[in-house]
Amino acid sequence: MKLNVKPSLVVSIPKRSYPIFVGVDIFENVDYSQFFIGNKALIVTDDHIAPILLDRVTKTLSKFADVDFLILKSGETSKNMETLSRIHSKLIENNFDRSSTLIALGGGVIGDITGFAAATYQRGINYIQLPTTLLAQVDSSVGGKTGVNHPLGKNMIGAFHQPLAVVIDISFLSTLSDRQYCSGVAEVIKYGLIKDKDFYSWLIENIKMLKCRDHSALITAVEASIQIKAAVVAADEREENIRAILNFGHTFGHAIESFQRYEGFLHGEAISVGMILAMSASGLLGQTSDADLDLLTNALQQFELPVNVPKDMTKEIFLDYMDRDKKVLDGNIRLILLKSIGHAYLESTETKPLLDKLFKTL
Amino acid sequence: MKLNVKPSLVVSIPKRSYPIFVGVDIFENVDYSQFFIGNKALIVTDDHIAPILLDRVTKTLSKFADVDFLILKSGETSKNMETLSRIHSKLIENNFDRSSTLIALGGGVIGDITGFAAATYQRGINYIQLPTTLLAQVDSSVGGKTGVNHPLGKNMIGAFHQPLAVVIDISFLSTLSDRQYCSGVAEVIKYGLIKDKDFYSWLIENIKMLKCRDHSALITAVEASIQIKAAVVAADEREENIRAILNFGHTFGHAIESFQRYEGFLHGEAISVGMILAMSASGLLGQTSDADLDLLTNALQQFELPVNVPKDMTKEIFLDYMDRDKKVLDGNIRLILLKSIGHAYLESTETKPLLDKLFKTL
Repeated sequence: MKLNVKPSLVVSIPKRSYPIFVGVDIFENVDYSQFFIGNKALIVTDDHIAPILLDRVTKTLSKFADVDFLILKSGETSKNMETLSRIHSKLIENNFDRSSTLIALGGGVIGDITGFAAATYQRGINYIQLPTTLLAQVDSSVGGKTGVNHPLGKNMIGAFHQPLAVVIDISFLSTLSDRQYCSGVAEVIKYGLIKDKDFYSWLIENIKMLKCRDHSALITAVEASIQIKAAVVAADEREENIRAILNFGHTFGHAIESFQRYEGFLHGEAISVGMILAMSASGLLGQTSDADLDLLTNALQQFELPVNVPKDMTKEIFLDYMDRDKKVLDGNIRLILLKSIGHAYLESTETKPLLDKLFKTL
Repeated sequence: MKLNVKPSLVVSIPKRSYPIFVGVDIFENVDYSQFFIGNKALIVTDDHIAPILLDRVTKTLSKFADVDFLILKSGETSKNMETLSRIHSKLIENNFDRSSTLIALGGGVIGDITGFAAATYQRGINYIQLPTTLLAQVDSSVGGKTGVNHPLGKNMIGAFHQPLAVVIDISFLSTLSDRQYCSGVAEVIKYGLIKDKDFYSWLIENIKMLKCRDHSALITAVEASIQIKAAVVAADEREENIRAILNFGHTFGHAIESFQRYEGFLHGEAISVGMILAMSASGLLGQTSDADLDLLTNALQQFELPVNVPKDMTKEIFLDYMDRDKKVLDGNIRLILLKSIGHAYLESTETKPLLDKLFKTL
């Protein structure tokens, strides 16, 4: 068997770059020897993914390293300091050293916590992302944001730590329910909105193909998404300015997720509503049209994504949660709006007057 | 009052550099406005330092920011994930954002944990080092190594995160007992041994002045030490090669500290014995002379530093602890030895044969 899969693209960050492989059933055909310095690797995964993919992944990686695994409880509740410490314990107990490699096999939670474990074990070891959800494939697996939640705030604790490689095997998406899959589509739509009008048009035209998870359409959608993400990350790894545009819809979305204590909408569902709000705010400034908003609303609804603010969530509640957001800098909220479809920018504004106007349109 | 203290040197690392101020009673005369982006700062200190220096430091920094503080229990036992989480809680509860600054006021433990809290809060915020021990002033405050201990291993969890500035006020050393002070001198001597023969000779000639904590001699010693440290860190921030020479004596020293469960020797005392062992190993290779070893032994003893391996610590115990060291890479230990006084290098060797020979000479 030839190990001849070529990267779809390369993320270039200061001092180093890393490849992203995208394809269907490519996992077995990547030459991993280039990514292992030492001979030890630990696969971190969860109890949803392990029964489906752990054997497959272990079998392949065992050709390149001495592979061990750790299975976490699936879900956001695992993303905390205690689980982080469990990963570190496993590494220390098994004499993992600086040349060892972590493998994140799972969705965003597994990727974030495994990346943070790698960022903080012996001041930083290598890790590889094997994202299994659409959300992780197009978003969290690329760009090096890692972290855990703090009892007082989500994603409050973390570090920037880029992976050594990202292998995006579209076939892994078979592990997803339709609801989780559509949640990921929200982030794909986001990329078109913020950076690429043509891609956005292509998405609108290919809703049916994407809804039935057509592999060819998915490769196009995933590659286009991470190309945008990689370019933005390369320009601004530490989110000092332009990288913030990736948060389009997220400030509103995070407020909703926090309010629901992460037990209501899935992440992409909250982002779906958040994008509607962000585009409405752009509309208030005369930058996007009602037709733009209708088109987006319709597209999101075709993926059964919510487009309305939860009924019990008032303007005052939004204000309270938004002012706690990490994107608040010295009191002003930094909001991502659209100049037009495909062109996002950073608007620094006071939260209350904005919400006053916005809630009148709802 | 003019804020006109100039940095003694600047540490240049990729993408940024930071100043180090050294002097006596300089703390009040540094222009901190250049270091605060936002208007919030949190001083992290311990219950040994707080009664002596917290008022002084708060008074000055309050001119530049809205200053809060957190007082930890002094000592190595505070350097853990729980304390880290306490710092993060304080930051979240008080709405610290990405523009906020942490201030580490204390010795190595405070510097390491505060730096790590800064490295991991919202994926990295700024921090300033105000080291109060000689050990922290010449070693841990410069270079960006941050972290906490894991129940299964010291300094196993951490990150590289460079401070925004280091202010080394020699007057802060009055908080130290003689034993703690002399422990710091061991690291000063290390710098001469690894990199600067002339500085080493100067140290030998100025033992009496240093013993009585003469301010002028201390400024010379601290500046020379951190000049060496800064140059090494600038050449290799992530300890991929040359930075390892800063660990001269440390592999042996850490084994002793671990064996004693950090309740016997102070760090510098363990390093004192470690340097004797490392120089003995260099002697076995014909690189340093018996006279070199005698001179070092005598110098360390004048500072009441230990020069002998603890009686109950056998060769087998050393072997066991050394093989668990972070500096073990794929089974071989990476040991720092001396080619000659002022010239350290990295030797990769098997631990057991080395210890066999070394213990015959003791």
